[in-house]
Amino acid sequence: MLLRLSTLFVRTLREDPADAEVASHRLLVRAGYIRRAAPGIYTWLPLGLKVLAKVEAVVREEMEAAGAQEVHFPALLPKEPYEATGRWTEYGPNIFRLKDRKGGDYLLAPTHEELFTLLVKDLYSSYKDLPLTLFQIQTKYRDEARPRAGLIRGREFVMKDAYSFDVDDAGLEASYQAQRDAYRRIFDRLGLEYVIVAATSGAMGGSRSEEFLTPTAIGEDTFVRSAGGYAANVEAVTTVVPDAIAYDDAPQAHVEDTPDTPTIDSLVALANAQHPRPDRAWTAADTLKNVVVALVQPSGERELLVIGLPGDREVDLKRLEAGVAPAEVETAGDADFARHPELVRGYIGPSVLGPNGAEGSVRYLLDPRVVEGSRWITGANEQGRHVFDLVAGRDFTADGTVEAAEVRAGDPAPDGSGPLELARGIEIGHIFALGRKYASALGLTVLDQNGKAQVVTMGSYGIGVTRVLAALAEANHDERGLAWPAHVAPAQVHVVATGKDEAVFEAAESIAQTLHSRGIEVIYDDRPKVSPGVKFADAELLGVPLVVVVGRGLAEGVVEVRPRVGGTAEQVAVAEAADRVAELVDSLR
Amino acid sequence: MLLRLSTLFVRTLREDPADAEVASHRLLVRAGYIRRAAPGIYTWLPLGLKVLAKVEAVVREEMEAAGAQEVHFPALLPKEPYEATGRWTEYGPNIFRLKDRKGGDYLLAPTHEELFTLLVKDLYSSYKDLPLTLFQIQTKYRDEARPRAGLIRGREFVMKDAYSFDVDDAGLEASYQAQRDAYRRIFDRLGLEYVIVAATSGAMGGSRSEEFLTPTAIGEDTFVRSAGGYAANVEAVTTVVPDAIAYDDAPQAHVEDTPDTPTIDSLVALANAQHPRPDRAWTAADTLKNVVVALVQPSGERELLVIGLPGDREVDLKRLEAGVAPAEVETAGDADFARHPELVRGYIGPSVLGPNGAEGSVRYLLDPRVVEGSRWITGANEQGRHVFDLVAGRDFTADGTVEAAEVRAGDPAPDGSGPLELARGIEIGHIFALGRKYASALGLTVLDQNGKAQVVTMGSYGIGVTRVLAALAEANHDERGLAWPAHVAPAQVHVVATGKDEAVFEAAESIAQTLHSRGIEVIYDDRPKVSPGVKFADAELLGVPLVVVVGRGLAEGVVEVRPRVGGTAEQVAVAEAADRVAELVDSLR
Repeated sequence: MLLRLSTLFVRTLREDPADAEVASHRLLVRAGYIRRAAPGIYTWLPLGLKVLAKVEAVVREEMEAAGAQEVHFPALLPKEPYEATGRWTEYGPNIFRLKDRKGGDYLLAPTHEELFTLLVKDLYSSYKDLPLTLFQIQTKYRDEARPRAGLIRGREFVMKDAYSFDVDDAGLEASYQAQRDAYRRIFDRLGLEYVIVAATSGAMGGSRSEEFLTPTAIGEDTFVRSAGGYAANVEAVTTVVPDAIAYDDAPQAHVEDTPDTPTIDSLVALANAQHPRPDRAWTAADTLKNVVVALVQPSGERELLVIGLPGDREVDLKRLEAGVAPAEVETAGDADFARHPELVRGYIGPSVLGPNGAEGSVRYLLDPRVVEGSRWITGANEQGRHVFDLVAGRDFTADGTVEAAEVRAGDPAPDGSGPLELARGIEIGHIFALGRKYASALGLTVLDQNGKAQVVTMGSYGIGVTRVLAALAEANHDERGLAWPAHVAPAQVHVVATGKDEAVFEAAESIAQTLHSRGIEVIYDDRPKVSPGVKFADAELLGVPLVVVVGRGLAEGVVEVRPRVGGTAEQVAVAEAADRVAELVDSLR
Repeated sequence: MLLRLSTLFVRTLREDPADAEVASHRLLVRAGYIRRAAPGIYTWLPLGLKVLAKVEAVVREEMEAAGAQEVHFPALLPKEPYEATGRWTEYGPNIFRLKDRKGGDYLLAPTHEELFTLLVKDLYSSYKDLPLTLFQIQTKYRDEARPRAGLIRGREFVMKDAYSFDVDDAGLEASYQAQRDAYRRIFDRLGLEYVIVAATSGAMGGSRSEEFLTPTAIGEDTFVRSAGGYAANVEAVTTVVPDAIAYDDAPQAHVEDTPDTPTIDSLVALANAQHPRPDRAWTAADTLKNVVVALVQPSGERELLVIGLPGDREVDLKRLEAGVAPAEVETAGDADFARHPELVRGYIGPSVLGPNGAEGSVRYLLDPRVVEGSRWITGANEQGRHVFDLVAGRDFTADGTVEAAEVRAGDPAPDGSGPLELARGIEIGHIFALGRKYASALGLTVLDQNGKAQVVTMGSYGIGVTRVLAALAEANHDERGLAWPAHVAPAQVHVVATGKDEAVFEAAESIAQTLHSRGIEVIYDDRPKVSPGVKFADAELLGVPLVVVVGRGLAEGVVEVRPRVGGTAEQVAVAEAADRVAELVDSLR
């Protein structure tokens, strides 16, 4: 492949696009790899398409090596299968819906569990047909509320989705591991750092799921890990629950005036000053904060919920949403409070909530740290008053517990492997042991050895292919531009001819042709009237791993060969240039 | 590639699918290449996907050889660019429309002229940047009123669409020819017979267009050709207009009672009996039939139109629609006639139509054969009466002419190359010299040598990739199944092991492995408990070009090698089988 910049359909931009928040987005647009067509919807220009094809090829090869067979489903699908599993409703506004000319309901598929299940049901009927893993590399659609960061959260994007079908749990485990191993090989080959973290299954359902995250400060997902090897998405972290506390000797609860305590800090200060605890000082962790939120079901139904948690922690909305999926969480508004006059803002306490309150009380869920016997300062449901020494289990109960409190660095890992540290990452893969949810809903059974129908157990495995490309750009760039790893770069060598000397262009052409004839992919900057400065800047922006400069040195019989990043420039005799470059290309592979 | 039927995700069907009207649809479903997901929307199974990839590869190679650069546009697009060119309205119910969560209007693109135009406008600004041809291989959507014939008329389908950009007409002509030549190479390489016919541009606009049709009795398109080399889609055939006739000696028009003449034949019989023409007998071609239709604009506006044409011809609705695009044609109904009492059904004549009638008369268009001086028998606008010797140009005029009359075998070719014959075909490609329509609407200009802004001139070039695959299946099958040409077949060799003898399976495995190691694509039917009859039937249904049968002959040291179609079976020594098969595979390429 030999691409000449004089004719290649690319234009580099000196200015960052106005809507670009992250480096990958900024640089992919500036270097002419992609172009925005609508919010979260991108056009692929020739260079971008070449990189995308290389990423897809790695994914496809490893899927096939893992025994998965490629198929291809439509993106435009009728609603019926998604209704059968409940997802037509659960997805709420997150999918694109449309009607055809006959009024039939359709969607643009965000993922294809239903269709794969129906296809296997259509073709297979015996345990002897299994195990089976199918995959596709296909365009997917999600109507994201906030498309952002270019390809990282788009509304039309390319995904590799695979689905496994097994007769029993052991089979599912083997299929799951085969995909997990294939994912490791894919990201290893792409040179993309990754962490595998325990995750929640959310609307997908299923017993177990893990995410592949690539660590980066601009990541949307927060994850935790311990020195002892625990790793999880924050949504999946479970709280280490303290033991219950004996409360036989606990003082009786007592309501106190607490004027001028608009914050937890001021409340704690007043408590220590006016109602000191004999054994130690009160801290924010001794206050029980009751946070009101509204749950909105996909059907639109709205319900208030109060979360009780220690005052030193905030509610983490993403953790809460993972716990209440498919409902979404909104802030409670004036109208909500107007319907519940028992909720005195700033002074809400357990006695009016859930099982403690009157008929029709707002549902009340507690952080798992609020164990039986724990003592709290909390709202007394009156302006300017709090209740002290309120003991969980003795003075109040709740409708259950919820993992909604923020996870903090230093919290203990649930498996006892030490304190957690927090980091951010981009989700590049997600694997689910789905179990029998979809097969049950859609009636996918096979006959077992005894001729008895068995519901098939499934896994589903996704890689965001376009997002992986963005993650690669995120991990491989500097302030001057992209810096692709050789195996995904649009070309391995970028030959630059500078000046106006015809001999320079002839020598550069000859080197480019020689490399091309050896199967090396070459971009050749043969533009006649472009300054060396612009050509060098473009080479750095495009990010091809090796740059060959043919220019003034040619008078002394040398050309310059330099890596895009690291290493140093070499002066190479023009006659040996192609050999030396080929050698360097080999060393990059 | 070695695909084992014991694990390959395919199931052949003995029964035709209920909705399959044509062989390609029937066989692609029965052989497990595709599967219906919704009307006009198909899933690709592994074998189908392999054939599709091969067709796409040929298209891609020839596009690149013609200098076109590959890009990839989204399928989900905002309406604004399509509004700017008027196509948002013109497409009417033929496109899928949807709203995103913010209420923005989107469509699933049926073709991408607007987006390519805007992209080039975005990146290019000088005549020096041109010529440019871009292409994509991409999923397209049309909400067909009647999806049919499987992949031939689908609602989600794969298209290769290319677009050329030039400064001047000569440039467009060169770009057009380069694509036309590439199309010829593509269909030649695919072994698909084709005819290039003149076509109308329809809603696409532009000055000139040609269709590539593959002749087949099940084709939806009728085309004509002459022995002298003329070829056209029926919509594009222009009538050979007779010379005007001197009418100085023509008799005056006279109205006559014509009772009991419900048909043209009965009218002609009455005319010859009661009002004979002195020079020769009246024929149906001497009657002027006035047909009322309703034109429905994409905006929904409805207008009546009367077409006057010789009574021996019918109106061809497709030809009429091509002439009035983007309007659609409907039959006029009772409500239409109620609003125009001057239209006496069965007796409509020119005197109340168009320029001959009163203010507000229905528009009147004539077949081009109704030349000045021609004499007609036609309706007198009274029940049971006709007017005779009505002379065009003397007694009536019209608002214009229209190509709406059917084309018949034997009609003269417009270029004088002899009588036309009619045939049917499937449209597999369509190329358009668009001119400046899209560039003007969207403001795509470049600066010319003198620094003056010039509107760019464009071409657009489409191949229905999935339809081409169906056309290949249509052209390559027999009653037993598919019979792919080697270069698009999912594999070149289908090895069948029959019986239960382990030695048979070992020998078959060895042959399959040897061929595989030589780079030959092999399907190996290794299913242990399937009868030879079923295996042979499946081999014929799947349609791989060479079949190798390892079975009873093995005891005598031979295997059978037979082509899927034509040729004869050979008995080959087992040790030489791989060599002989490889030789035959080479001969197929």
